[in-house]
Amino acid sequence: MLNIALPALAVSVSAAGGLGFLAAGFDVSSLEERLQETLSLVSQPNSGLHHIYQERGTLPIGVGFINWGADLPRAMAAIEKYKPCAVWLFAPRSQPDDLVPWVEQLRSRVPGYQPQIWVQVGLVAEAVAVAKVLRPDVLVVQGSDAGGHGLAQSASVLTLVPEVCDTLHAQQMGQIPILAAGGIVDGRGVTAALALGASGAVMGTRFLASLEANVAHGYQAEILRSTDGGTSTVRSTVYDRVRGIAGWPDRYNGRGVINQSYIDAVEKHMGDDENRALYEDELKKGDMGWGPHGRLTTYAGTAVGLVRETMSAADIVQGTSQEVSNIIGQLGQ
Amino acid sequence: MLNIALPALAVSVSAAGGLGFLAAGFDVSSLEERLQETLSLVSQPNSGLHHIYQERGTLPIGVGFINWGADLPRAMAAIEKYKPCAVWLFAPRSQPDDLVPWVEQLRSRVPGYQPQIWVQVGLVAEAVAVAKVLRPDVLVVQGSDAGGHGLAQSASVLTLVPEVCDTLHAQQMGQIPILAAGGIVDGRGVTAALALGASGAVMGTRFLASLEANVAHGYQAEILRSTDGGTSTVRSTVYDRVRGIAGWPDRYNGRGVINQSYIDAVEKHMGDDENRALYEDELKKGDMGWGPHGRLTTYAGTAVGLVRETMSAADIVQGTSQEVSNIIGQLGQ
Repeated sequence: MLNIALPALAVSVSAAGGLGFLAAGFDVSSLEERLQETLSLVSQPNSGLHHIYQERGTLPIGVGFINWGADLPRAMAAIEKYKPCAVWLFAPRSQPDDLVPWVEQLRSRVPGYQPQIWVQVGLVAEAVAVAKVLRPDVLVVQGSDAGGHGLAQSASVLTLVPEVCDTLHAQQMGQIPILAAGGIVDGRGVTAALALGASGAVMGTRFLASLEANVAHGYQAEILRSTDGGTSTVRSTVYDRVRGIAGWPDRYNGRGVINQSYIDAVEKHMGDDENRALYEDELKKGDMGWGPHGRLTTYAGTAVGLVRETMSAADIVQGTSQEVSNIIGQLGQ
Repeated sequence: MLNIALPALAVSVSAAGGLGFLAAGFDVSSLEERLQETLSLVSQPNSGLHHIYQERGTLPIGVGFINWGADLPRAMAAIEKYKPCAVWLFAPRSQPDDLVPWVEQLRSRVPGYQPQIWVQVGLVAEAVAVAKVLRPDVLVVQGSDAGGHGLAQSASVLTLVPEVCDTLHAQQMGQIPILAAGGIVDGRGVTAALALGASGAVMGTRFLASLEANVAHGYQAEILRSTDGGTSTVRSTVYDRVRGIAGWPDRYNGRGVINQSYIDAVEKHMGDDENRALYEDELKKGDMGWGPHGRLTTYAGTAVGLVRETMSAADIVQGTSQEVSNIIGQLGQ
C-alpha cells in the first residue's frame, strides 16, 4: 500500500474502529511530513479520534515499514516526535536479526512510550524465530493470496495460521496474538481467520477501493474490473524490475494483476531494459496505462474479484465487522 | 489419493459419517475389482453401512475419476454393476465439454439410478462453465494449498470459495452446494470453509495418515515428519515426469514435499531421463526411498505440518466434526 495508505486512509480506518496504518515502506524521507498531516487530521475536533489522542498521547494509527530499505535513525526521529501507537515491521534482509535494533529502540528510546510492535512473517519457521528473538506484540501472518510483496513460496493463511498457532503454543509463546493477512477482504475472510485461530485480520486490497486511498483512478478501475484472482493475478518480480526497484531480498516477489509487462517478460522473454523503457513510456498515459494490455502495476491479492465497488473506509470497516457477526450467528444455527 | 484411497479407507470414512471415495483415477482397469471388494466390506453385518446399502440399493461410497485418462465405457460398466452413490469428475482435457458424455450416461443409463455428480474445479470461470453446462449436484472447489494435482495457477479456497459462491448466486446457480478442497485437515479448516460460504469440505492429505490408507510406511512417515508446508512442499510437474506419467493437461501440476528429484530438476537442471532413471533406482529402496533426500514422491498439501499422528479414519471424521462444533461455539461467545 506504498504511497496509497496515506494519512486520510489511516485516520479513517482508525476512526471507524479499525487500526489504520501509514505505509512508510522502504523510503522514510516523507514519513515526518505524513505523520504531521496525520496529527492535523486527528486533532480536528470532529475526527472522532481527538479524545483518544488527548487521553493516550499516542497517535491512534500505526506506521508500516519495509525494513530492507527503511532508515532506522530517520524513522526513529519521526516516531519519537509523533508517537504512533503501533509500528509494523516487514521484510528485513535478515529475519529476525536485522529487526533487533528496531525493536530495541522502539521499546526503550522514548521514556513512557512503547508502540505496539507488529512483525509480519510468511512461514512457520519465521514466526517461531521472530517470536523468540523479538517477542512482538502482534504477529502478522501473511499467506500466498496476498497482493503486493510477500514470500515467493508460501502457504495460504488457511494452513499457515493454524500451524503457526499450534507451533507457538507448543513452545509457550501462544499468547502472542496472530493477525491473518492475504486474501481477506470481507467478513467471510475475517470469520475464516478467526476460525483458523487468528485474533483478527488485516486487509490491503479491499482498501484500494476506498474513497480515502491515494490511488490512481486507473489502478482503482483495474481492481474493480479484475475477477478470478487465481488466474488474473500472478506472483512475479517483473513489476519491481520494470519500475527499477531492486532492493527486495530474493525470497520475496509481488502479486499483481497480469498485464503487458508480465506477458512480455514471461511469454515473450523480453529483457528488463526494453520492458522497463516501455513501462516508463506507459507512465505518460496516466490512468490509461493500467489494464490487462497496459504496463502500470496493479498490485492486488487473489481476492481482487471480491472487491466490486468503491466505498468509504468507514463503510468497509463497519460493514466487515457486521458481516462477521452475521456469519458467526449463522454458523451457530 | 490414487492407489491410496481404496475400499478399506472409503468404507471407513462413510461408516464414520463422512462420504468416502475410491480413487479410480485415470486408469479404471481395477475399478470393478475394487468396487467388488467395497461391496464385500459394506455387506458385512458389522460394517455400519449394511442397512443403508439394503435400503437405498446404492453403495454408500463415491468413485473419483481423473477424466483426461479414465475410459468411459469401462468406468460405466463398473458403475452400472455396483452403483456407487456418488461420482467425482476431475481434470478432463477440455472442461466442461469432455465431461458431457460422462454426465449424460451417469444420469440416464441405468433406470432408477442416478449417482450424485461431483465436479472439481479450480477457478471461478471453470465453476461457472461447469455449473451451466453440467449442472452438477456438487461443485468441489479446489484451492492452491491442495496436495497432489490441481491447477498450476490458482487462489486458495480463502478467496476462491467466496467468489465462486457470489458468481454462481448472481447467475441463479447459487443452489449448487460447494465443497472446499485444498489445505483442509481439521475442524479449523472446515469451519473456515463454512464461513467462506462452502457447504462442507473434502480432505485428502489428512487421510494419508489414517490407519486404513493403502500408503507405504515411508510415505506416511514423510507426511508425519514434514512441517511448514509453504516452504517444504512445492507445485511442480517433476514428480509426474520422473514417474513417467505424461497425460496431465498443461494447466495442472502437483504439490508434493520437496525431495531430491525436485532439487536435481530445478536447482541442478538435471534432464528428465537421468532424473527418471535415478527415481527408478530409488524404488528398490522401498520405504527408505522417501524423505527430503529421497526420490519417491510424497504428494501432500500445504497443511502437511498439521498432520502429526496416524489415527483411524473414524477418529479423523468424528474428531473433525466435533472440532467444528467446538469452534463454532467458541466463535459465538
